Amino acid sequence: MRPDDANIAGNVHGGTILKMIEEAGAIISTRHCNSQSGEHCVAALARVERTDFLSPMCIGEVAHVSAEITYTSKHSVEVQVNVLSENILTGAKRVTNRATLWYVPLSLKNVDKVLEVPPIQYAWKELEEEGKKRYEEQKLERLVTKQRNGDLIFPVFNPEPYTVGYSQSSLIHLVGPSDCTLHGFVHGGVTMKLMDEVAGIVAARHCKTNIVTASVDAINFHEKLQKGCVITISGRMTFTSNKSMEIEVFVDADPFVDEPKERYRAVSAFFTYVSLSKEGKPLPVPQLVVETEDEKRRFEDGKGRYLQTKAKRQVQMQPLTQQ
Amino acid sequence: MRPDDANIAGNVHGGTILKMIEEAGAIISTRHCNSQSGEHCVAALARVERTDFLSPMCIGEVAHVSAEITYTSKHSVEVQVNVLSENILTGAKRVTNRATLWYVPLSLKNVDKVLEVPPIQYAWKELEEEGKKRYEEQKLERLVTKQRNGDLIFPVFNPEPYTVGYSQSSLIHLVGPSDCTLHGFVHGGVTMKLMDEVAGIVAARHCKTNIVTASVDAINFHEKLQKGCVITISGRMTFTSNKSMEIEVFVDADPFVDEPKERYRAVSAFFTYVSLSKEGKPLPVPQLVVETEDEKRRFEDGKGRYLQTKAKRQVQMQPLTQQ
Amino acid sequence: MRPDDANIAGNVHGGTILKMIEEAGAIISTRHCNSQSGEHCVAALARVERTDFLSPMCIGEVAHVSAEITYTSKHSVEVQVNVLSENILTGAKRVTNRATLWYVPLSLKNVDKVLEVPPIQYAWKELEEEGKKRYEEQKLERLVTKQRNGDLIFPVFNPEPYTVGYSQSSLIHLVGPSDCTLHGFVHGGVTMKLMDEVAGIVAARHCKTNIVTASVDAINFHEKLQKGCVITISGRMTFTSNKSMEIEVFVDADPFVDEPKERYRAVSAFFTYVSLSKEGKPLPVPQLVVETEDEKRRFEDGKGRYLQTKAKRQVQMQPLTQQ
Repeated sequence: MRPDDANIAGNVHGGTILKMIEEAGAIISTRHCNSQSGEHCVAALARVERTDFLSPMCIGEVAHVSAEITYTSKHSVEVQVNVLSENILTGAKRVTNRATLWYVPLSLKNVDKVLEVPPIQYAWKELEEEGKKRYEEQKLERLVTKQRNGDLIFPVFNPEPYTVGYSQSSLIHLVGPSDCTLHGFVHGGVTMKLMDEVAGIVAARHCKTNIVTASVDAINFHEKLQKGCVITISGRMTFTSNKSMEIEVFVDADPFVDEPKERYRAVSAFFTYVSLSKEGKPLPVPQLVVETEDEKRRFEDGKGRYLQTKAKRQVQMQPLTQQ
Repeated sequence: MRPDDANIAGNVHGGTILKMIEEAGAIISTRHCNSQSGEHCVAALARVERTDFLSPMCIGEVAHVSAEITYTSKHSVEVQVNVLSENILTGAKRVTNRATLWYVPLSLKNVDKVLEVPPIQYAWKELEEEGKKRYEEQKLERLVTKQRNGDLIFPVFNPEPYTVGYSQSSLIHLVGPSDCTLHGFVHGGVTMKLMDEVAGIVAARHCKTNIVTASVDAINFHEKLQKGCVITISGRMTFTSNKSMEIEVFVDADPFVDEPKERYRAVSAFFTYVSLSKEGKPLPVPQLVVETEDEKRRFEDGKGRYLQTKAKRQVQMQPLTQQ
Repeated sequence: MRPDDANIAGNVHGGTILKMIEEAGAIISTRHCNSQSGEHCVAALARVERTDFLSPMCIGEVAHVSAEITYTSKHSVEVQVNVLSENILTGAKRVTNRATLWYVPLSLKNVDKVLEVPPIQYAWKELEEEGKKRYEEQKLERLVTKQRNGDLIFPVFNPEPYTVGYSQSSLIHLVGPSDCTLHGFVHGGVTMKLMDEVAGIVAARHCKTNIVTASVDAINFHEKLQKGCVITISGRMTFTSNKSMEIEVFVDADPFVDEPKERYRAVSAFFTYVSLSKEGKPLPVPQLVVETEDEKRRFEDGKGRYLQTKAKRQVQMQPLTQQ
């Protein structure tokens, strides 16, 4: 990891790690989907499951990213990606991330056509059954979030500190050739990196300290983003616990040249950040001031997600710390 | 703003800010010029008015770039761009730049055709009149500088095609943080990439076709290159065979800030390039015209290396293709 | 490999491959040299053996770079790197490069101190003997080229400090896909960034301190710059006041592939820089020494612009500080 991968605190941006994870996922699933003779295709990112940042990665360390296909349905591929950081001076290695991504193979001749995925072999029957369960679950959740995607963020003038309007931020990005695959789609990883950037700015504005990505909730990619469009990435804080902040991020696309299409919402997701002291210790987070009914409702929803995750983590922590 | 946007003093390069300003201007004017039905177009930058850097922008600050269309003539758009820097830790904001840019809409079908600009609405009649005055002023100034530009061409010696002087090239690179290891040395790979870039330009200037690197002779790194130095990479053609060109590349370093050292030669190497047709087939290379005694000697030396390599390759080819 | 790794022919730049090779070599040798307890070190590239580009690598292919330590002497490490390209659509793999690199471990506490390298185990005694032979050969060759390098320094004219010739600089840039709009024109902002880079090098060479852009005069873009052309950006100092320097920058384009056009002047502009102390305070600027009639005339012209701007600024300052 090089100096320009760093955030102000000197660690690697969560967004940079998300981008590497997606790159590995895209390679392995595109390779797999083309492994049988037939129409050539490119694997497009459809969804990333909730992922935790287990420990920070530092500049100068070597990142090891490994990917494995763990399930295939008729039209989608599940990929498991692990990220290790290695300090080549001391030899120390740590797991920094585990992520699960879903890809869909799109025909290169007609990008609106989804192709069939060659099935994989499972070592045990149970692995297939568990995969099928995960597949059904994410399918359902994708449906639900697609409906929720109606919201827009509007600017607030002269807001009070610690309100939602105070830290809310957005950035505009013109999609260029180096953001895209050869076939003219924005890499999912590029989008996630920009989302993490905006979420980080919202978090830093709220608590005015160094901040790091702690986790990212499941992200669904509902619409393709194409070369030449302008994307607006907006973030607003939805919830704070004692030591964490939840930020909702939206990606909207304006296909402004060559396209009669309207602005559309392509992606949305929740990022969780923590605030760190100069020594890298977690700091208390100022409570978010919610004013409108919508903000109160979102705060309660965020609290629900927070408590649910906390409960889940207590269960999962045991196997995780053993590895 | 990230570490690789910084100059050695730790502030953001003026050039990086100019680039952001222009991006904002290009987006808003392209969007405006496509807002009425008709031929699609892209807005091309025609002029930037004088701009002052009112205060420095620091790494870690958030840049806010906002753009507004302030005047439209029949064929051009005036855009006003403001840049604010925000320290998200203290909340302090400062104006760092104000700039005025002029764009012209070019048809996407025929880039030599300038399209018409949809008129904007003015809040007051005076705004339109003032804009018209600015438009006339810049139009006049453009004419004046166009004439001046004809005079001012640097004393270009015009060497004959195919001589050493004709294709000889050099580039200067200011070594920044992202070129370096954490310990402040330039990565050897960064130096090699720049050397290949210069060698490629020399080769392309000589034969005016697509060219590719065929091989690189042994490269010795005699001196360390440190952060903050300016490196000059120079290339000159030394030898041509029927289908290849040999280019000698030098890397010289000027440790110009805070260092009493003199310019020194850090690296040198020979690159071999071949010329390719559009179909990717090797093309014959025009013979290098050597004029001075030194050039003749270097040509003979190059021929020696060429014949030696050719002999070696005939021996090595067999094991290579077996592996 | 991504679009911005490509040359105009659509293949990956040789320089990009060399950079990946060196990165792999630096990682494996730094890891090895730190594998025994003792002083921490970083492996610095000392030499790359001759390397051939056996087949081109294409954009969209996946590069596999693998490295192995093949010999260690007391103070150096030999690394063998292999590069494979994989087309993930067809599954085809090809060897594109093999390279041998030599690294030397430098102490992190004192970078002029070379540390000892932990020995590796050889599978056969012959491997060690062959390695030793390669080690002796390269050691000899390094000595020979070091001497040659002393002779070959380009005829550097050594202009006097503070003259125009002393600080004058130029750089060449091959316009690549990521510099351009989707329609193949260079972004105006990319050009301005390169112009600022050259102006900054001229300013830093003149006063040998940290410098910052203070203002940019109006810039007119008379000619489009297209993908694939080579641009030469040249800068020379025209005027110095007590605390500022004016630098004139030219952009010339050579539309060298597929185009019958001659070199043309695309843009020119004046940049004003100031010199700063480590604490960020403006420093006095050494006066420019003008020698020829042209230089004197340009100095007077620059003085005129300087006085005019100063007068204008005194008028404008009031509204500016009120906003």
